Amino acid sequence: MFSIRTDLALEARELYQENSNQEIPGVEVEQKKEDFATVTRVKVFNRQGSEIMGKPEGSYITVEAPGLKKADADLKDQVSQLLAKELVQLIPKKKNLKTLIVGLGNWNVTPDALGPQVVSKVLVTRHFFEAYGKKDDPTMTSVSAISPGVMGTTGIETVEIIRGIVEKTKPDLVIAIDALASRRMERVHTTIQISTTGINPGSGVGNMRKEFSEKTMGVPVLAIGVPTVVDAATLTNDTIKLVVENLKTQASKGSQFFQILQEMSEEDKYSLIREVLDPYGANVFVTTKDIDIMITNLSQIIASALNISLHPGIDLKDVNRYLH
Amino acid sequence: MFSIRTDLALEARELYQENSNQEIPGVEVEQKKEDFATVTRVKVFNRQGSEIMGKPEGSYITVEAPGLKKADADLKDQVSQLLAKELVQLIPKKKNLKTLIVGLGNWNVTPDALGPQVVSKVLVTRHFFEAYGKKDDPTMTSVSAISPGVMGTTGIETVEIIRGIVEKTKPDLVIAIDALASRRMERVHTTIQISTTGINPGSGVGNMRKEFSEKTMGVPVLAIGVPTVVDAATLTNDTIKLVVENLKTQASKGSQFFQILQEMSEEDKYSLIREVLDPYGANVFVTTKDIDIMITNLSQIIASALNISLHPGIDLKDVNRYLH
Amino acid sequence: MFSIRTDLALEARELYQENSNQEIPGVEVEQKKEDFATVTRVKVFNRQGSEIMGKPEGSYITVEAPGLKKADADLKDQVSQLLAKELVQLIPKKKNLKTLIVGLGNWNVTPDALGPQVVSKVLVTRHFFEAYGKKDDPTMTSVSAISPGVMGTTGIETVEIIRGIVEKTKPDLVIAIDALASRRMERVHTTIQISTTGINPGSGVGNMRKEFSEKTMGVPVLAIGVPTVVDAATLTNDTIKLVVENLKTQASKGSQFFQILQEMSEEDKYSLIREVLDPYGANVFVTTKDIDIMITNLSQIIASALNISLHPGIDLKDVNRYLH
Amino acid sequence: MFSIRTDLALEARELYQENSNQEIPGVEVEQKKEDFATVTRVKVFNRQGSEIMGKPEGSYITVEAPGLKKADADLKDQVSQLLAKELVQLIPKKKNLKTLIVGLGNWNVTPDALGPQVVSKVLVTRHFFEAYGKKDDPTMTSVSAISPGVMGTTGIETVEIIRGIVEKTKPDLVIAIDALASRRMERVHTTIQISTTGINPGSGVGNMRKEFSEKTMGVPVLAIGVPTVVDAATLTNDTIKLVVENLKTQASKGSQFFQILQEMSEEDKYSLIREVLDPYGANVFVTTKDIDIMITNLSQIIASALNISLHPGIDLKDVNRYLH
Repeated sequence: MFSIRTDLALEARELYQENSNQEIPGVEVEQKKEDFATVTRVKVFNRQGSEIMGKPEGSYITVEAPGLKKADADLKDQVSQLLAKELVQLIPKKKNLKTLIVGLGNWNVTPDALGPQVVSKVLVTRHFFEAYGKKDDPTMTSVSAISPGVMGTTGIETVEIIRGIVEKTKPDLVIAIDALASRRMERVHTTIQISTTGINPGSGVGNMRKEFSEKTMGVPVLAIGVPTVVDAATLTNDTIKLVVENLKTQASKGSQFFQILQEMSEEDKYSLIREVLDPYGANVFVTTKDIDIMITNLSQIIASALNISLHPGIDLKDVNRYLH
Repeated sequence: MFSIRTDLALEARELYQENSNQEIPGVEVEQKKEDFATVTRVKVFNRQGSEIMGKPEGSYITVEAPGLKKADADLKDQVSQLLAKELVQLIPKKKNLKTLIVGLGNWNVTPDALGPQVVSKVLVTRHFFEAYGKKDDPTMTSVSAISPGVMGTTGIETVEIIRGIVEKTKPDLVIAIDALASRRMERVHTTIQISTTGINPGSGVGNMRKEFSEKTMGVPVLAIGVPTVVDAATLTNDTIKLVVENLKTQASKGSQFFQILQEMSEEDKYSLIREVLDPYGANVFVTTKDIDIMITNLSQIIASALNISLHPGIDLKDVNRYLH
Repeated sequence: MFSIRTDLALEARELYQENSNQEIPGVEVEQKKEDFATVTRVKVFNRQGSEIMGKPEGSYITVEAPGLKKADADLKDQVSQLLAKELVQLIPKKKNLKTLIVGLGNWNVTPDALGPQVVSKVLVTRHFFEAYGKKDDPTMTSVSAISPGVMGTTGIETVEIIRGIVEKTKPDLVIAIDALASRRMERVHTTIQISTTGINPGSGVGNMRKEFSEKTMGVPVLAIGVPTVVDAATLTNDTIKLVVENLKTQASKGSQFFQILQEMSEEDKYSLIREVLDPYGANVFVTTKDIDIMITNLSQIIASALNISLHPGIDLKDVNRYLH
Repeated sequence: MFSIRTDLALEARELYQENSNQEIPGVEVEQKKEDFATVTRVKVFNRQGSEIMGKPEGSYITVEAPGLKKADADLKDQVSQLLAKELVQLIPKKKNLKTLIVGLGNWNVTPDALGPQVVSKVLVTRHFFEAYGKKDDPTMTSVSAISPGVMGTTGIETVEIIRGIVEKTKPDLVIAIDALASRRMERVHTTIQISTTGINPGSGVGNMRKEFSEKTMGVPVLAIGVPTVVDAATLTNDTIKLVVENLKTQASKGSQFFQILQEMSEEDKYSLIREVLDPYGANVFVTTKDIDIMITNLSQIIASALNISLHPGIDLKDVNRYLH
C-alpha cells in the first residue's frame, strides 16, 4: 500500500534503523566527516541486504553538505572537488574511455530539470574524436551527452531511447543524472548521491520508467542524484506520525487513548493521506521557492565534478572553468 | 502566528463559514452553475467584511472548472470564452482604452511562471498606435505587456518597476496575472480568480512584495490568478487537523482523551508544522508533477480570454487564434 | 568549389533553367496557384534527373505563400489546412500507423530551432497506446516525437541517435522537420517544402551530417522544411553576379570591358567571396530580425498540419486547437 | 540614403581614414597591444569630431581579441580581467555606489540575446541592502539588473521602461549591455566596446529606439557592446565595392570601362543592394552558425568582469566564480 518514498540509500537504511537497533544484514556502512560535508558509504553486498533496503546490490555514496542551502562560492567549489575525487574512484580505469552522460527528467518542470541542466553544462568531446579519427588524447576522454526528455513529451520510455543510443555509439560507461525524492526536507538540495547501481523504477520526481542499469544498458551505469523534492504523501505521512507520537507522550500508557493511538493502522493513515491529497494522489510533491537557484548551483557543482573527473587535462583547480 | 494561506476570496469565506453558519457581514455572495464550471461572485462591500476576509473591498469572481485537470480542447475553449465574458464586464468602457498587462512571478520556477507565460502569448499592439500616431482603431485597443521578473533576479520590488512604467506610459488599466496559493489541492489548476482589487502582499508563490493596486498604481488594477500551489504549511496544518478530527470521533466526549484533542493549541500545531518543514519554514510549497502542462494550458486560456476581451475585432469564435 | 547552396528542389530546378530553356530530363513539374499560395510539385524520376538536380529521386512539394511574412491569422489557418491535405496524400494508408516525428536543428540558435519548436507543439500519443496495451483507436494514431539536439551539444551524429530509437520503437514512418537554406531572401519564411526523400548531408543551417532517409532508417522518411536563412556565400555570390550583369548592360558587346566581365571566372568570384566572408568561411548565414516570430508562426502551422493529418479525430476545422 | 552600418567607434574612424590620411579633427586615438588583445581608446572631444564620427562626444574603449572565436578557457579569463580593469577606470569612485545593469535586446533571437544573458549571470545585491536597511558594505555595492525585452514584445520603448525604473530606484550609474553590428565579419564575436556615451538610436540588431544616455536617464550611462552581426546591407555594399575595385585593377585608367566603374553612383549601388535583399530591406543581418556558443562565452566574460569591477570583495582571481 503506501510506503515512504525515498531514493536515498541513506534514508532506506535510516528507516530500517528506526525500528531496529542493529545494522541491516548484508549492508556495510562507513562514514567520514569533513568540515563542510559528511560522506556516507553504504555498501549492499548480498540479496538479503538488497531486499531489506529495497535497493539493488552495489555502492551508494552520499555527500551531505547542509551549507549548500546558502550556496556560498567557496563551498560550491569544495563540494565539486570532493565529488570529483569520489567519481574518480568509480570511473573504470580504461585507456580511451568513452562515456555517455544522460540527463534524465523534464526540463519544463524546475525541480525535475537537474539532469538536463547538468547535460547543458558538461564538456562534450566525442565529435572531436570522431571528426579527427582520433582514439586517444592526453588531455581529454570521449564524452557524449543527451537529455532525451520525459515520456510525456516523447511518447517513448527513456530507457528505450538510451538503449538505442548505447547500441549505436557503444560507450564504456553511462552516467545518469536525475532529480530524486527524499523523505526529509532537510536533505533536499543539500545531498548528492552517487551509486553504482543505476536508476530504478519510480526514481526521479516519479513517473514510472523501466530500470536504467548495467543489466538493461549492457555497460556499467553510474547514477548521480540530488533530492529536489519530498513526496507530498511522505510529508503527510510524517506529519501524521508526528502528531500521533506527540499525543502519545500526553497519554498514560495503558489508557484507552494510548491504545487507540498505538493501534492506528497503516490503512487508517493511508486513508487520511488520500483525503488530504486527493484528487492528485501520487502526483504531488513538495519543493522550495528557491528551486531555480538550487538547480543552477547543483548542476554547476555536478557538471564541474564530471569535467574534472573525466578529462585528465582538467584539474581540481579548474573547478568552474569549463562549464558551458 | 501561523495562519492558513489562501489567495482565493472563495476560500477566505469558506474558512469563516467552517466556524460559523452565517454569511460574513459586509460580504455578498452569488453563485451560478454551468455545465462545466461554477462561477462564484464574492463582493466585499465594507470594512468589516474586508477585515474578516483579510481581503480589500471589491469584487472577486471565481471560475471553478474541475475538468481543467484533464485539459480537453473543448473545455479550454469554453473556459476562455466564459472568462472573456466576465472580463468584458470589468474592463472600463472607455474609447481608446490603453491597457498594460503585467506578468508577475518567476519564469524560472514552473508553478510561478503563469504570469510570464500569459504575457508571452497575448497580442501586444501599443507600438503600432505609437508608430502611426493613431489614437483609435475599430478592431483593436492599445495593449502593452511586461514580465519584469522577481526581486531575487532584479533586486527591485516589482511594484516599483511597474509604477515607473505606469508613470511613463500612462495606461488606463493594469491587468496583473499571477500564480496563487490555494488551501486545497483540488482547486489547484482548476480555479481562475478575477478581482478588482489588485494583488496584495504575500500573494503569488510567496515572496513578500508591496501592494499592487489602484492605490499604488494610480489606475484601476484587475488581477487574474490561478492557484498552482498549496503552501506546505497549509497542507501540514490540514493534515494535523484531519488527524485530530479523526481521533475525536473515536473518543468518548468528556474523556481525558477528547479533552487533550480539544485543547490542542494553535501553538502546539505550529510547533509540529515547524518540526515537519524545518529548516525551510515558510518557503516550501506543494504542487503537481504535470505542472508544466497545466501552466501551458492555463496561460493559453487566459491569454485567449484577454485577446478576446480587449480587442473589438477579436471574437468569441476566435478563441486560440491570436495566441503567440 | 563554391556552389550556390539551396535545400529547395524548386530552386535547384530554377538554377538549371537559368542556363537552359528546357525542363530537366527525368524531372516532371506541375504547378497550381491558389489565392494565397502556389503549390509546385517536382518529381525526380530517374538517375539523370537526380544528378542534375543534386537531389535524390522522389517527390518535392513546395508551398509558397508570400503573405506569411505578415503572419495573418486567417492565412496561417489556410496554410495549415493546405499542408495537411498534402501530407494526407503522402502518409502511408496503414491501419494502426506509428509515426516518429523528429525535430532536427539547434534549439539554441533561433533560425535553426524550427524542428524542436514543432516537436514541442505536436500531440504525442504513443505512450497512451503503450500504457493501455491498445493497438488502434478511431480518433488517433500512435505518435512519438523527439528533438535530439545537434552534434555540437551531444557529440553524436543525429542520424545515429534516431536510428537507435527507430530500431527500439519500430515506427512505420519518420517525419523529420528541419530549417533549410534558400538561395533567395524572398523565399525565407514564406516557403514550406515536403519531400519523400528525407534529408541529405549538408541540409539545415548547415552542419554536415549523414543521410537521413529510408535507406539509413529502414522506414519511409518524410521531410518537412522551411528556409529560414540564406547562406552568406550565396548572397555574396548573387551580389557579385548582379553587379557584373548590371555592368554588362553598360558595356558595348565586343568591347574589352564586356570581355573582362564575360570572362570573370568562378575562381575569381570565389576568391572575392572568401575575401568578404573570411575568416568565417562557410559558417555564416543571413536571416531576418523577426526570426523569432517567424519560427513561432511556422512551427504552429506545421504542428497543426501534422496533428490534423495524423489523427483521424482531428479535423481541418480544428486547426490550432491541439497545439501544445 | 544607404550608409555603412557600424556601432563601433573604431570602425567609424576606420571608414573616415579609408578616404583620408589624417586623424579625424577632434578625435584622439591611443592603442596598446597585449599578447592576446589590442586595446584601442578613441576619444571624441569636440563637436566636429562627433559629427564626422557620427558618435557622441566621449570615450570608446575597444578590446579586440581574435582568439575569442575559439573560446579557450584561459583567454576567456584574461579578457574578463582586462575588461574588469578598464571598467574600474570608468565606474564612478563613489562610496555606496548604486548600479542598474540593463540587458538590452531580444532574448528570443540568439544574436540579440547578449544583454539578457549577461543580466541572467551577474550578481544582483540591491534587495539585500534594502531588506537590511544597509547603506554600505565592505565586500559589495548595490546592483540591480533588468532585461525589459524589446518593443515588439512589450509595445513600449525600452528607454521609457528604464527611465521609469531609474526614477523610482535612483541608481548612480546605469550600465547597458547590447549586441552591436560591425561592418566586418572578422570583428564579430571578437570585439568588446565600452563607451561612456550610452547607446544611440539604431544600435543593436537594429530596431530604432530613442537615445539611451545620461541626457535621457539623468545619470551616467556606460555601454558595453559586442558586435554579433553584420548588417546584410553592409555586407552587400562591401561586396559590390570589392567587385568594382577588383575590376578597376583590370581596366586601363582613362578607358570607358574605368570611367563607368569610377562613376558608379551610390544610388546605383543602393538599388543593387535593394535588389539582392528585397523584400526584407533593412531587416536582414548576417551572423555565424556557432552564435549560441559565442553568446554564452561572451556573456560569461562580461558578467564576470562586471562582478569583479562592481564588488570590492570580488577579486581578479575570482573570475567565473560568482557567475549565476
